[in-house]
Amino acid sequence: MPRRERILADLGESALIQRIARRAGHPPGKSWALGIGDDAAILRTRPGEELVLSVDAQVEGVHFLFGRERPRTIGRRALAVNLSDLAAMGAEPVGSLLCLCAPRSMALAVFDALIAGFVAEARRFGCPLIGGNLSRAETASLIVTVVGRCVRGRALRRRGVRTGDLLYVTGTLGAAALARLRADRERSVLGRVPQPRLDAGRALARMDGVHGCIDLSDGLTRDLGQLLEGTSLGAEIDVARLPAPRGFGRACRELGLDPVELQAGGGEDYELLFALAPKSAVTDPVVLRKRLGVPVSPIGRVVRQAGIRGLPPIRGGHHY
Amino acid sequence: MPRRERILADLGESALIQRIARRAGHPPGKSWALGIGDDAAILRTRPGEELVLSVDAQVEGVHFLFGRERPRTIGRRALAVNLSDLAAMGAEPVGSLLCLCAPRSMALAVFDALIAGFVAEARRFGCPLIGGNLSRAETASLIVTVVGRCVRGRALRRRGVRTGDLLYVTGTLGAAALARLRADRERSVLGRVPQPRLDAGRALARMDGVHGCIDLSDGLTRDLGQLLEGTSLGAEIDVARLPAPRGFGRACRELGLDPVELQAGGGEDYELLFALAPKSAVTDPVVLRKRLGVPVSPIGRVVRQAGIRGLPPIRGGHHY
Repeated sequence: MPRRERILADLGESALIQRIARRAGHPPGKSWALGIGDDAAILRTRPGEELVLSVDAQVEGVHFLFGRERPRTIGRRALAVNLSDLAAMGAEPVGSLLCLCAPRSMALAVFDALIAGFVAEARRFGCPLIGGNLSRAETASLIVTVVGRCVRGRALRRRGVRTGDLLYVTGTLGAAALARLRADRERSVLGRVPQPRLDAGRALARMDGVHGCIDLSDGLTRDLGQLLEGTSLGAEIDVARLPAPRGFGRACRELGLDPVELQAGGGEDYELLFALAPKSAVTDPVVLRKRLGVPVSPIGRVVRQAGIRGLPPIRGGHHY
Repeated sequence: MPRRERILADLGESALIQRIARRAGHPPGKSWALGIGDDAAILRTRPGEELVLSVDAQVEGVHFLFGRERPRTIGRRALAVNLSDLAAMGAEPVGSLLCLCAPRSMALAVFDALIAGFVAEARRFGCPLIGGNLSRAETASLIVTVVGRCVRGRALRRRGVRTGDLLYVTGTLGAAALARLRADRERSVLGRVPQPRLDAGRALARMDGVHGCIDLSDGLTRDLGQLLEGTSLGAEIDVARLPAPRGFGRACRELGLDPVELQAGGGEDYELLFALAPKSAVTDPVVLRKRLGVPVSPIGRVVRQAGIRGLPPIRGGHHY
């Protein structure tokens, strides 16, 4: 019986990335402290310093729609989501490169607004636009490369969680998913831009006992899965402790939405999720809040038994 | 009378890039020795070293067609054209990031071949794939960021030509354009991958008196225009000295093509074009060939009077 040819949709994104990593071979050489599979790669530059590099794409029709968002917002977010990767590594921004693919028919006013939004965000976070590329394409996309800087050996990584580690998130969860669903229903313009947690990430990079850190782009459940990937460990989450924005429960009820599902599966919060050794000098959320400059909530812990307990199952697969 | 809204096609690529550079503001900060407008940006890292960063896109339907090229060739070229930017800066490859945008319906075999081609080229030139991103998109594109390394202050730049400078190109011109036109006519598979002139670029970076260097992606006339941009100078080119591949003239005649037009306007040669002070220690092409490890041809010189003399006018605009 002839089998249908396999396509990308048959595999999950993680499986495809592992396929690339296998092919690319690791370790990638002595210049690189970390290669494929984290929020960013780490390049050894000089004693006391390392650079982190990351690339991320915002594609029309997948990540944004011109009808639903202002071009300036799209330009801002293109950089913000990349800065969030630097935050997850505990890095300070150094600079950015923008590859803009756009159709020849794009209005110059739209182009200008995309760039203005990008540059405004670059100024705000001290991450100057220092190069890039302009290409014709049928649909628009903004592919951003960011460079950050860390104290040598202090960059945060995804991997390293151990049994008993305490799990925390910064800020609140669910606002982005709620705003998106609301804009869809009301056919209104979505103006939300994530706030990269750069200061919090840098504070974490200075602390000892941080066993893993990731930014929440795909939703708590999926990104917690990433933090646990490659281990046989699991996690127990106390949903009652998931930090929600003000008025979130009521807004969800009004729209007939399950608040926990939005918080765990909604994604695009771009908060930091991190694991802390239980014997760390600081585990008190009040003290952590002072150190990180942002509210911090303990949400559970890492356990020996595989799987994530306490969160609702993810609706739909996360296939490519 | 209402004016039509301006679109990207109304402006040239250079004008759009200048628009971005104006908005981004320069200089970009003390970390960066060079920002928008060259083949790559230059980051100061440690005494004695600088890093160069560049990004370039290969877009389906614009830069490649799956029907016309094997996926492995497309993957190889995606890195090769970026390595050519490093060559033009005189940099040694350090690593690469690949952002692959692909439709869900892409065959896994095509994905694997794209990656295999990219990784083969990465191994060949010592530029490991150390990170990237995978995104859904309607059409495929490969956006590559490369990082290279230079001796501090020795990176080659586009700008700096002076009156009297001698102009040289490496290798031969016209083969890529001929192969492309031939494949179009014969509807055959195009298997050509450019050879990045990394060794030649590094040799030039060690020499004194190099007043400008660029890789020939858009064709000699256009890229020479880039070398002269921002100056009031011009160039005189001796077309009889343009280096042609073996059998080129006959192949052009057989196909009814003008060889000089292909050599000057065809593009995608990815050879280096550089300007050398006439009083440099080495100006003899035979000695230069030994130093650079590749044939070098003197093709003309920089003159006080603006404009490029000796080359046929460019057919069609180079509008975005």
